[in-house]
Formats: sequence, structure tokens, C-alpha cells
Amino acid sequence: MTLAQEKTLAQKVRADFPILHQEVNGKPLVYLDNAATSQKPLAVLNTLSTYYEGYNSNVHRGVHTLSAKATDAYEGARDKVAEFVNALSRQEIVFTRNASEAINLVAYSWGNQNIQAGDEIILSVMEHHSNLIPWQLLAQRTGAVLKFVELTETQEFDLEQFKTLLGDKTKLVAVVHVSNTLGCINPVEEICRLAHHQGAKVLIDACQSIPHMKVDVQAIDCDWLVASGHKMCAPTGIGFLYGKLDLLRAMPPFLGGGEMIADVFLDHSTYADLPHKFEAGTPAIAEAIAIGAAVDYLTDIGMDKIHAYEAELTAYLFEQLRQIPELKLYGPQPDENGEGRAALASFTAGDVHPHDLSTILDQAGVAIRAGHHCTQPLHRHIGAQSTARASLYFYNTREEIDIFIASLKESVEFFGSIFG
Amino acid sequence: MTLAQEKTLAQKVRADFPILHQEVNGKPLVYLDNAATSQKPLAVLNTLSTYYEGYNSNVHRGVHTLSAKATDAYEGARDKVAEFVNALSRQEIVFTRNASEAINLVAYSWGNQNIQAGDEIILSVMEHHSNLIPWQLLAQRTGAVLKFVELTETQEFDLEQFKTLLGDKTKLVAVVHVSNTLGCINPVEEICRLAHHQGAKVLIDACQSIPHMKVDVQAIDCDWLVASGHKMCAPTGIGFLYGKLDLLRAMPPFLGGGEMIADVFLDHSTYADLPHKFEAGTPAIAEAIAIGAAVDYLTDIGMDKIHAYEAELTAYLFEQLRQIPELKLYGPQPDENGEGRAALASFTAGDVHPHDLSTILDQAGVAIRAGHHCTQPLHRHIGAQSTARASLYFYNTREEIDIFIASLKESVEFFGSIFG
Repeated sequence: MTLAQEKTLAQKVRADFPILHQEVNGKPLVYLDNAATSQKPLAVLNTLSTYYEGYNSNVHRGVHTLSAKATDAYEGARDKVAEFVNALSRQEIVFTRNASEAINLVAYSWGNQNIQAGDEIILSVMEHHSNLIPWQLLAQRTGAVLKFVELTETQEFDLEQFKTLLGDKTKLVAVVHVSNTLGCINPVEEICRLAHHQGAKVLIDACQSIPHMKVDVQAIDCDWLVASGHKMCAPTGIGFLYGKLDLLRAMPPFLGGGEMIADVFLDHSTYADLPHKFEAGTPAIAEAIAIGAAVDYLTDIGMDKIHAYEAELTAYLFEQLRQIPELKLYGPQPDENGEGRAALASFTAGDVHPHDLSTILDQAGVAIRAGHHCTQPLHRHIGAQSTARASLYFYNTREEIDIFIASLKESVEFFGSIFG
Repeated sequence: MTLAQEKTLAQKVRADFPILHQEVNGKPLVYLDNAATSQKPLAVLNTLSTYYEGYNSNVHRGVHTLSAKATDAYEGARDKVAEFVNALSRQEIVFTRNASEAINLVAYSWGNQNIQAGDEIILSVMEHHSNLIPWQLLAQRTGAVLKFVELTETQEFDLEQFKTLLGDKTKLVAVVHVSNTLGCINPVEEICRLAHHQGAKVLIDACQSIPHMKVDVQAIDCDWLVASGHKMCAPTGIGFLYGKLDLLRAMPPFLGGGEMIADVFLDHSTYADLPHKFEAGTPAIAEAIAIGAAVDYLTDIGMDKIHAYEAELTAYLFEQLRQIPELKLYGPQPDENGEGRAALASFTAGDVHPHDLSTILDQAGVAIRAGHHCTQPLHRHIGAQSTARASLYFYNTREEIDIFIASLKESVEFFGSIFG
């Protein structure tokens, strides 16, 4: 088979995603809002219906057949997630609603116990609000000080400045792996090495990396890592916290309730072993089982293949975007192979409001996002009130990029004729 | 049509529940574990698949068609839940993962701000761990004192003793509406009236009432009420907090992240209006939309009809259980119409371990629960290490009760012949 005849990854998988095969505003849907949430393959949707139609039951506390089956599937999903991120132990994976909850868990449980007035927490200016507000609230509770890594000239994580911020007072570094706005890929291994040298802990927000590349918590050597399921082909309502076993063990409970206890008395209680200590109440059972199915689906395709295909698309996307002189592109440029950044592009077009661009593109069936993408401070930092963002996943095609680019050109020309 | 010819509610609705039509261990499934979790009707499952196959998209921040549709459906579900519990405003409904999270939200946000050393919090000995541990943790944080309402001779909430506990130091009363173990229905209106007279706030755990009867937050006049979706025909991963508007307004944020902010700066942030202030990160979108569908489903049947049918079943269940002399039944007895308690029965059979009973019943296709049902202190109080529990919902039938009773009799006789 020649290269030209070989099916692209997207051609192979698009049939797995029923939602992609529809018209929006009379045009074929071109879904380029994957950094906000991904679509779900049939393998995941079938896992949900198989659960609800076959063995829906509460977990852990029942001895009847359905309950045992649900428990096995729920805990089996934890095994899958643990293997997917290369955790040392399944006990290192705590299921949460989303990445935000996972970060808040660490900020309350570890933060309240370990952070004192004057301690320093290093974040970056590109953090998603979910990796900023929990630390602002912790700083308010404790008197800790937040410090911020700024950007290099290419709008990437400034590692040199980071080194100058690190010091004896640094207790925690919390940074995003891949920026949802700039698309830069941060040197998380080096960040962990430097922070650990100072005795600080490191939390990595992997929401935008895990769906797109192999993420190995042992290689990174982070103390905690968080991700949301809905961006990696899993349902809404599920995410997870990875944490090193000793750290999670030493952390006090966060939410109290059923499931997270060992023995309960009226005046005190003892708590369950990991990971259950941090999973209060009936968990998101179906959603957890389905994140296991999502992990299987991604693993079957291969994270390397997904990354390689997205790099091809990225190279093509940026080639095309550079043909539109009115555009200002944010974040680093990809190299000729599409490497060096994520498969998303944030941009502005002169005085055109990104919401207007998005609205016009929607008329052409193209779904992009416009706004501050939950990174308001970053937008202030780069001098943009908001940006438009097209974000890809492995089911997107060059043809979709062509449709997007054609519609974008038309929109920019249309607004240019108004403002020009 | 004569009464004998009229279809029961269960006969009308069983086709809506695919999971019920299967064999377990070679016998037709008799699912009597509804207090742990309910099954889901097709209307709810179809809502999930319609969402994922039709308009899955992140909410609130997008202007494209799918995002607008998802936002409308998500917020529309909030309207439905608000109407279902008769809230004054949709802003009074906060979506959470489950009831436990909702209680923890109040314990952290309101509790940390309003509870001081020496303040008293009144619970009952029948509380589910989810309505006990968060207050234990709050008491540890603040030095507050927990007080406990005990049981009357009929194993119900002792209102007279409650009155003696209420005092100037009482800041909060947190009690369950319907006990998941005793099945008693607590006088929540009277509890609220008495507590408010003392200037205390009241939180009601409605997990076991909302699926089975009309619950009206304005009639109860509670300050907060929590429920889990998975016990009321909705998916796992969704629950909600109702709170009076002024109270929720005055409460500081709990979890920080996207969605819950107005303006974010590096050093501080302002927060979104209710209810979004308490919904950090991407919410459980599909699950919230589906709890709306569950509310529609229950409302279409009619909560009054559900309650009346369950009362009939309760009367029949207890009639049958009383025919087995080896059984000890917990909680109040129903009246001749099955009224006065919930449609569940917790019991022990002499020295037979409830887990063994449950295992034997499972061989007959009958799913009941055995254990402490997340009410360990209550079990100690009533002198049982664990109990077996059969819990009904409106899709259960008299025939299923017959199968359960026959299997239970056999099991009890079998163990009797061993121990006897």
C-alpha cells in the first residue's frame, strides 16, 4: 500500500463517533472545540449502556451478583487508569468529578496541613483558573504567597525565571503540562527536578496533555497529577487525581461520608485505606467504568499514533493559518513536523471580536471556542481580552481544517470590509 | 374496569427498565436493593445517548450551536429540579456529584465561617455516614460539639428528646428525612420549626425521601436539603444541594476553578452569581441533563401514585415478613395501609449473618443488601452488628416480594437446621 492509499487515523476512527456525522446549520459539523471537551466513541457509550442495562448497582457494600460485578468493573477501571499513566500502584488513583475537584482536594487536604503563612507557591501566568483559584483560596486561608512564572519571547514557560523564583520558602509548584491557550508543552520533568531539589512538591495539570500524548507519572516524577475524563473520550462527571502513595497516605480526608470510612462512632471515625479515603459517597460508577473504556480505546489506537497524527494536523493547521495575514497567533510555532506544541491554535484578527468570529464560523458548521478559555490572567498578560481557539483531536481531518480555514478567511475578509 | 383487572404501577412501568428483564444465577432478577441505588428508565438512558450522540459540548463558555444546546439542556435540568422540590428560585439548586458532596459543601463553606468552638450541632443516631463524618470533621476543625437525638421505643426520631437538646448554643440541626435503615419518616417540618425558633439552621438529607414521595422545601422550610440522583432514576455522578437563596449568597466559595468565577486576576478573583459560584470546573453535564429527564419521568408517573403504590407494597411486605418468626424487624411497623414508614425492611434472623442470608438469596436471583448500610453508629445503638435490608421501588411487584419471602424462609430454615 502506498502512503497515498493509506487511510489516515481519522478516516479509520470517525465511524466510532456518531456525533461527528451530522449537519449543523445545514453544513457538515466540523468540531474543533476539543480542548473544551472531546467527543465520545461508541466503545465508551456502549460501556455506559451495558452498565445501566446490565449490572447497575451500588459498589463495595453489596454481596449480590450485580453489586459484585459493578464493584469489579469500577475497580478494574482504576487499574486501567493507573496503568495508563504508569502509576506504581492502583491506590495512587483517586476518582474525582473533574480535574478541578482533584486540585481542590490537594489544596484542602495537603494544603491546609502543610502550608503556613509566608510559604511560597509557584504557579505560572498561563494556568487555567482551576489551577489558580484553589491556590488563591489556600493563600487566603493560610497567608501563603503566590508567585508566577512568566513567558519567554516565544510565549512559553520561562524556565530561567522559574529558577529565580525557587527558594527555601517554596513549598509547592503547580503548573499546567500543556497550555489550553498557548499550546506550549511545559518542561515538567525539569520543573519537578528543580522543585524537588528545593524540597518543594509539584502538582501537574495534565488535562490538555493526557488526551494527546503518552504521560508517565514516574518519568515526570510529579507528586500529583490531575486530569479530566471528558477531554479524553470519557463521559462528563469523571476525572482523577494521581498522587504518590506516601503523600496520599499522609494526607487527611477531604470529603467525609460513606465509602471513605473504616469504623464510625458518633464522636469519631477511622478512615478507609487508599484510594477510598478520598472517595466519599456513592462514586460516579458508570463514569469511572467508562473512563476505563476510554483508556482502552486510546491505548488500542496507541498514544504514539495519536500524537504523530495530531502533529501532522498541527503542521498543516499552522501552515494554513499563516496564510491569513490579519491573524495574530499565540504561543510557540510548531516545527516543520508539527512538533513542539499542542494541536490547537489561539488567535485574534485585529479588532474583530472572537465571539463574532465564532458565531460566523458556526453558521458554516464549524465549532470553535471564543473567550478567555478560563485563562483570564494569561489573556491580560498577552494583551488580548479574548481569543478564538480551534483545537483538534485525532478524529479531525485535513478536509475539516480546509473548511475551517476557508470560513475563517471569509469571516476575516467580511469584518475587514466593515472595519477597513 | 374492575380493580382486579387494573394494571399495577409496576406492570405499567417495568418495560421502561431494561435491566430488570434478566436472569441472575439462572433465576429472574428480583432487585430489592433500591435504597442503595435505583435502576434507570429508558427515558433517562436515551437522554444520555441523545446528548452524547447529538450535542455533547462543554457548557456556558461556547457560542457555537452544540455548546448553546448543551448549556440550554444543562440549565433546563436545573429548572426541572428546582420545580420538583418547589424551590423559590433556580439559583437555589447547585449540582454536586452526590449527596455527600453537597453536605461537605455546606460543612466547609457555611460551617467554617459560622461555627465556632462550643457551638452545638444536633444530629441523630440514625444518620448515614454522609451526614455524620462531615460534621465530625467540622467539629475537629472548629471545636464545635455534636449532640445526638436518640430513638423512641418504636425506633423513631425522639422529638421530645430533640427539644431537650435544642438550646442557645445550637447552631445547626442536620437530620435525615427517611432513615435508610429504620425506614422511619422523620417530622422534618416540626424539626425545622423548633430549630428555627432557637435561631439554628437545618439541613435535611432527603436521599431516601425524594425518590419516593413529594418533597417540598418550602413546606418543610429547611435551610438546605441534599439528594443524590442515582437513587431517583438518574445516572450515577449527580446529586444536588438546595439552599435558601440568602444563605447560599452569604456562603463563600467551596471549590475553586473555572465556571465559578466572574473576574480572575493573579492575586485575587471575584466569583460568579449563584448557582455557578458553587460549581467549579466542567460539571457533570450529561448526568445533570439526565437528572432532569428522571424528574420528568417521576413527575409524569406522579409522586403521589408512586407513594401510594409503594405503601401497598410495604403493607404486603411487612405482612409477609411477620410470618417468619425467626426475624427481628427494625424501625416502626407500617399501619394497615402501609403508611408510616418507607418501603424497605431491615432485619436479622437470630445468629445468621446477614451476609450469608444475602449470599443465599442471590443464588435465588434476589438482590438485597447486608451490612451496616453506612449507619454503623445506629447499628451499635440498636444492638446489631449488621442487618439485611430489602428495599423497594415502584417497579417492584407483589410477585417479587413472594419470591423474596419464599427464598428468605428457605434460607432461615436452612440456617436454623445448622444452628438449631
